[in-house]
Parts: sequence; structure tokens; C-alpha cells
Amino acid sequence: MDDRTAVLENGDSRHNDSHVLDIYPLGCYYFGSTDAAALKNETLADRALRMKANYDAYGMRNCVAGVIVVELFKHPHLLLLQVQNTIFKLPGGRLRPGESDVDCLKRKLSSRLSSGEDGRGPEWEIGECLGIWWKPNFESVSYPYLPPNIQRPKECTKLFLVKLPASRRFIVPRNFKILAVPLCQVHDNDKTYGCIISGVPQLLSKFSFNIVES
Amino acid sequence: MDDRTAVLENGDSRHNDSHVLDIYPLGCYYFGSTDAAALKNETLADRALRMKANYDAYGMRNCVAGVIVVELFKHPHLLLLQVQNTIFKLPGGRLRPGESDVDCLKRKLSSRLSSGEDGRGPEWEIGECLGIWWKPNFESVSYPYLPPNIQRPKECTKLFLVKLPASRRFIVPRNFKILAVPLCQVHDNDKTYGCIISGVPQLLSKFSFNIVES
Repeated sequence: MDDRTAVLENGDSRHNDSHVLDIYPLGCYYFGSTDAAALKNETLADRALRMKANYDAYGMRNCVAGVIVVELFKHPHLLLLQVQNTIFKLPGGRLRPGESDVDCLKRKLSSRLSSGEDGRGPEWEIGECLGIWWKPNFESVSYPYLPPNIQRPKECTKLFLVKLPASRRFIVPRNFKILAVPLCQVHDNDKTYGCIISGVPQLLSKFSFNIVES
Repeated sequence: MDDRTAVLENGDSRHNDSHVLDIYPLGCYYFGSTDAAALKNETLADRALRMKANYDAYGMRNCVAGVIVVELFKHPHLLLLQVQNTIFKLPGGRLRPGESDVDCLKRKLSSRLSSGEDGRGPEWEIGECLGIWWKPNFESVSYPYLPPNIQRPKECTKLFLVKLPASRRFIVPRNFKILAVPLCQVHDNDKTYGCIISGVPQLLSKFSFNIVES
């Protein structure tokens, strides 16, 4: 008997039913590329100035990011974007004024992961919010809580589970790379992936992954 | 306007409703102590032997732990037990054969936190599972996923949210100390608190804390 099954049977079913996540082998998906996306080519100092001007004009920056899991070698892998061979990112971005979290995430997933597909792929299925990170300042440190005595945080990023269908095409701008990174490599590795991504395995830990063989 | 409220209003309500957690000021609770609890006084090597014998007899060790939050200085604090002035623990422990996660956690919370109260306090309200940690071996390293190629993990610990009522008595054995530690001190501090506790702020990050003034 598989010990993992035993745990689930042993538990109170109320607490487990919604925590089974179907994941599909990486081979179920097609990965292609298209024209490079326009990137802001700015220094960190310029970026901080832009953030500050945006804050003064629009208030706190609200962002969303998608957590997408596939299976490879019987282990869950997280889909990450790598920008110009340097930083790793979860797909996502900034909310437009009045836009909901879910609408923004669908828009960003389409522009980053189905680029040029014009909505011909399946809809994106957005699941629950897994975690929220706050930036008290315009610099780059984020915290998974609103730090004490911070009344006016500058950025809030919400991570949502994205449930993939049994197949789909990913079409990514040429200056982005899409990678499937094993959870065991991401976990606790904030030097490489940053604090938000390296904490994703913990946020996913309550799920029992159901690997759907194709 | 409070920026935090703005985020929630902006979001899709489907995704936020269940993520508001009422917390009460630390001062709402009474803390007392009672007779010392019996502790296993064994070396690490003896413990490993005992774990191995238990595994051979009963299979994987299933454990549960409770995540309990109170408010102090407008910041959420996590209730931790400190054993004999050394290690920090979440309240919890091992499932008896056939026992459910929730029943075990209620039993352990009563024995550790309402010691000698004989069930005269309010029932424990157990919320959702926040995360699951696995030990592939009898040694002490835990992972928030089943490590690749591990068919027979040795221990599984599930963290559950515990929702406190507006008041209650905590009666703790004399050789345990109960502490309220701010999330900002726990976060990313696995040297002091270990990997499981130091990850709790992330697991709680999706919640909006609603501080209920008494």
C-alpha cells in the first residue's frame, strides 16, 4: 500500500476533498515561441523613480502571479519564466485600474503564455489564492504579511493557483524562456529564485497531486 | 483610505470571502500552568531507534499541528510551545491508530493547552489544512513535498488552522512555556524556529486578519 494514500484515507475527508490537484505530464503541452515582447530597459534607480511616481498617481501597486504545475519524472514541476537569461518570474503582472485579480491574471497569462494566440486556446482556469506578499517600500524586499507599523504598503502580490487542462499550447515571447523546475529545486532556494518563488512549494504542500496519465 | 481594504475590494470576492480570519487580542486569553507533563528523556540515537521500531510496527508516523493566531500591537502573533527552554513547537502530536486528523488535533490541544480542564473549556474549532511536511527518513529534515523517488516516507505532519473564540483559558504543563511570537519574527527564521514554524507566516499570508476589539 502506498503510504500517501493511507494518509488521505486516514484524514477527515472534509479537509481533503478540495486539496487534490490534477496535474498532467509536461509532454501533454506544446511549447513554442513568437516575437520578442517589449521590455522596459531601465536601471534599478529609474525603476524606483517610476514606482514612486506611479504610487503617487495611483496608490499601491496591485499585482497577481500564477502558480502552474506540471508533472515530470513523477515529481511536480513549477512553470517559470526566465527573462533574458537572468531573473526567474511567475507569470503575472500589474492590475489595471478597476480590474479584478482574476481578470488581470487571465490577461497576463494570455499575453505571456499564449502570445499571439488571440484567445484561440482554452480559457485559463484560476483557482484559489495561495499567498500574498507585501512590499513596504519601493525597494525589492517582500514579506508574507504586512510588516508592523506599515500603514501604506507600496506593493501587494497575490499568488493564485492556475489549473491546466489536459493539453494546451504555450506560446512565449522569444526573449522569455519557459522552464519547468522541480519543486525540490525551488524549495528554500531564494538565492536563485527569490523569496516568493522559493516559498511556492510550501504554499502547494497541502495539495495531494493526482498525476493524470495521458 | 486603508490600502489593505482597497486590495480586498478590488479582488474577485469568490476568492476572498473564506480568507478573512478573525483574531482577538492576546489580553482576551487567560494563561495558567499546571503539573509538569511526562517527557521522553532520550538521546537522539534512542529516539531514532524508537522511530524505526514504530515504523516497522505501525507504518508511517502521522502527525498534526495547530496554527493559532492572536493579536498584539496590531500585528498577528503565533502561539508556540517551548519545551524546557529549548525547542519551539506548534501544539500537536501523533495520531492514534484509526484516529482522524481533526480528532487527534483536538485531543492534543486539550492535553497541551487545556491541561486538567477536563473538557470544561470551549471546543477547539479546527479550520483548513494549511500545509503538509514530509520526512523521507528517521532523521530530522522535513520537506513540503514528497521528495522524488521516496516511496515510503517515515513521517507526515499536517498543519491545521485553529480558530480561537473571543476568550478562553490556556492551562499549560509547567515544563512547557507558551509564547506569542510575532509573525515578522517567525518568518524566514528557521535557525531559531525550524523550517516548519518559520514557514507558517507564508501559509497564513493569504488571510486578511480581522482584529476583533474586545
